[in-house]
Amino acid sequence: MTRMDDILENVAIDAWTRRLSREPRQANAPHESDAELLELQAAPEHYLAITIDTVAEEILTGLYLEPYTMGWVTVMASLSDLAAVGADPLGVVVSVSAPAGGEESLVEGTARGMEDACRSLGVFILGGDSNATPTVSLTGCAVGIVPRTEAITRRGLQPGDSVFLTGRAGSGNAFGLVRLGGFDGELFPEDEYRPIAMIEAGRALRGVATACMDTSDGVLTTLDQLTRLNGHGFEIDCDWASILCDEALRVCERTGAPPWMMLAGPHGEFELAFTVPSSSAEAIASAAGGWDSPPLRLGTVVERPAITLRLPSGEKVDVDMAPLRNLLETTEGHLDRYLREFRELGRSWGLE
Amino acid sequence: MTRMDDILENVAIDAWTRRLSREPRQANAPHESDAELLELQAAPEHYLAITIDTVAEEILTGLYLEPYTMGWVTVMASLSDLAAVGADPLGVVVSVSAPAGGEESLVEGTARGMEDACRSLGVFILGGDSNATPTVSLTGCAVGIVPRTEAITRRGLQPGDSVFLTGRAGSGNAFGLVRLGGFDGELFPEDEYRPIAMIEAGRALRGVATACMDTSDGVLTTLDQLTRLNGHGFEIDCDWASILCDEALRVCERTGAPPWMMLAGPHGEFELAFTVPSSSAEAIASAAGGWDSPPLRLGTVVERPAITLRLPSGEKVDVDMAPLRNLLETTEGHLDRYLREFRELGRSWGLE
Repeated sequence: MTRMDDILENVAIDAWTRRLSREPRQANAPHESDAELLELQAAPEHYLAITIDTVAEEILTGLYLEPYTMGWVTVMASLSDLAAVGADPLGVVVSVSAPAGGEESLVEGTARGMEDACRSLGVFILGGDSNATPTVSLTGCAVGIVPRTEAITRRGLQPGDSVFLTGRAGSGNAFGLVRLGGFDGELFPEDEYRPIAMIEAGRALRGVATACMDTSDGVLTTLDQLTRLNGHGFEIDCDWASILCDEALRVCERTGAPPWMMLAGPHGEFELAFTVPSSSAEAIASAAGGWDSPPLRLGTVVERPAITLRLPSGEKVDVDMAPLRNLLETTEGHLDRYLREFRELGRSWGLE
Repeated sequence: MTRMDDILENVAIDAWTRRLSREPRQANAPHESDAELLELQAAPEHYLAITIDTVAEEILTGLYLEPYTMGWVTVMASLSDLAAVGADPLGVVVSVSAPAGGEESLVEGTARGMEDACRSLGVFILGGDSNATPTVSLTGCAVGIVPRTEAITRRGLQPGDSVFLTGRAGSGNAFGLVRLGGFDGELFPEDEYRPIAMIEAGRALRGVATACMDTSDGVLTTLDQLTRLNGHGFEIDCDWASILCDEALRVCERTGAPPWMMLAGPHGEFELAFTVPSSSAEAIASAAGGWDSPPLRLGTVVERPAITLRLPSGEKVDVDMAPLRNLLETTEGHLDRYLREFRELGRSWGLE
């Protein structure tokens, strides 16, 4: 059985939610949407959508070195959660924690990254807070609004639905592997890692998608969480050249990393993984209505709650994401062990 | 001249805001309200009010030792900003950063503090995020809604207005002095420091107050910021027994700290300081309409942009808050120096 509480992160979230009363006007249950959805008496046709996201581990581990990236991702991470529920952004507030008397360049770069991320999506930073702390930590909280009848959650997919990505994925894991795996940084310069929240796509999916979740924790983690929430699984067509972005394909080629790692790792990007009924799949695949670029068909929702990869060889492989999703915790932050056990898990599934 | 940029914190905020574009639908300018106010197309009679606040320094310095207090204050700090603009809270999202594999007691206590703070005001935690970081840092983001014509900002007071507090103040500084000044903790046990956001009072002040700001950074800092923003000052009647709460009076008596320190220190509480036209002052002072307990008249708005204390002796003393508000920065976190120079500033004003 594929259970929510096989995943340590879900257990940790539940440790909080079971201690907190639930707002009766809240439309989503815990885990079930990327942003919180709240009835709004002053606008009864709409839900308010709100989400909060802290970027700290990515800075502490040295994954992000440029303040610009830190600011950019802080804004995009919370806007991506709005995209996944189909919301129109209203704005973002931020809280910046950094060492006292810190370098002007940190404020300069972080603010510029936040500003450029906002400008690229027509959104504004509304205000914020700052604190003096030993390490840098940035929090973004995005708020938006979505018509009640069209809000999208992570629940609702059905066997036979088609599953799509808004675009080719793997940039987050490719960047992470190059930066933390000891490879030449020129393979994926930090200033080329600028993932964009899929706000327009989220709007186009209102009333269309049966479920949606962003890929911020990696594509396979997203599909695994959708599997656990819905009790149905996925068969994925692993046509790597069409699924992976150019950077991920290049990093695989140059480092020898197998392509599945680009989907399985924990550092995702801000694409949306979404499902639609088979009757709409053709229209979506041909990008009818509201799409900048056509979404990418990944595969099919199946009855059985498991993720099956159909490899280019035709071979089918079941992947058990639980040990992989728990690996950061079970390897206690030892990066070498993490990368080694990551590869070993793939071999145990029959990959590479 | 009393300028905004005499205060290092204001300068630091400006370093951010001048790098960020301003949302044209935002109703408040930087510094000018406790929460951001945003036009809401779906509810054209209302503003959305949103604010973010991180509790980190209070934990790092050892000011708060109990997770319950950390959780409680995180929720109350952002709700207090909603109170100051007169908003009805819609909910709070939180981000919790703490060491990986941390104690269960941290989650337990923090969640209980957040839950109890929410329950005391009929508000809910809607969701959140968690991160593994070396030190504990808690961020709350509160969102609310306020009728457009009745939203309250920090600007608008006029000479002749009366200035009030929603209740007796000084608990934050009294608690801070006991905890960090080396006094017997029994003088102010941490579980008695449970400041409450003045949501009901904020509602009652809609369309009544000419300006409002919470006292989270201490009463005199609040009055100083209002002075700088409005270009008018205050004459304050220092009837300590009616201005200071019981805890602050007790701490003054037992530690020998002078009463003005309870208003001048940087660790406030969540009362509201607000101004009303003299024509409404009588009604406010007699608690007509919507008040649990009568507000407390502090004094009068005067033309000259300065804060004058009228002492119980009848003597008048001008206080220059700039060096005091900058003291955390200029003493670079050395607590001994901070406390010594704090007292010296008071002497230079002619106090104690």
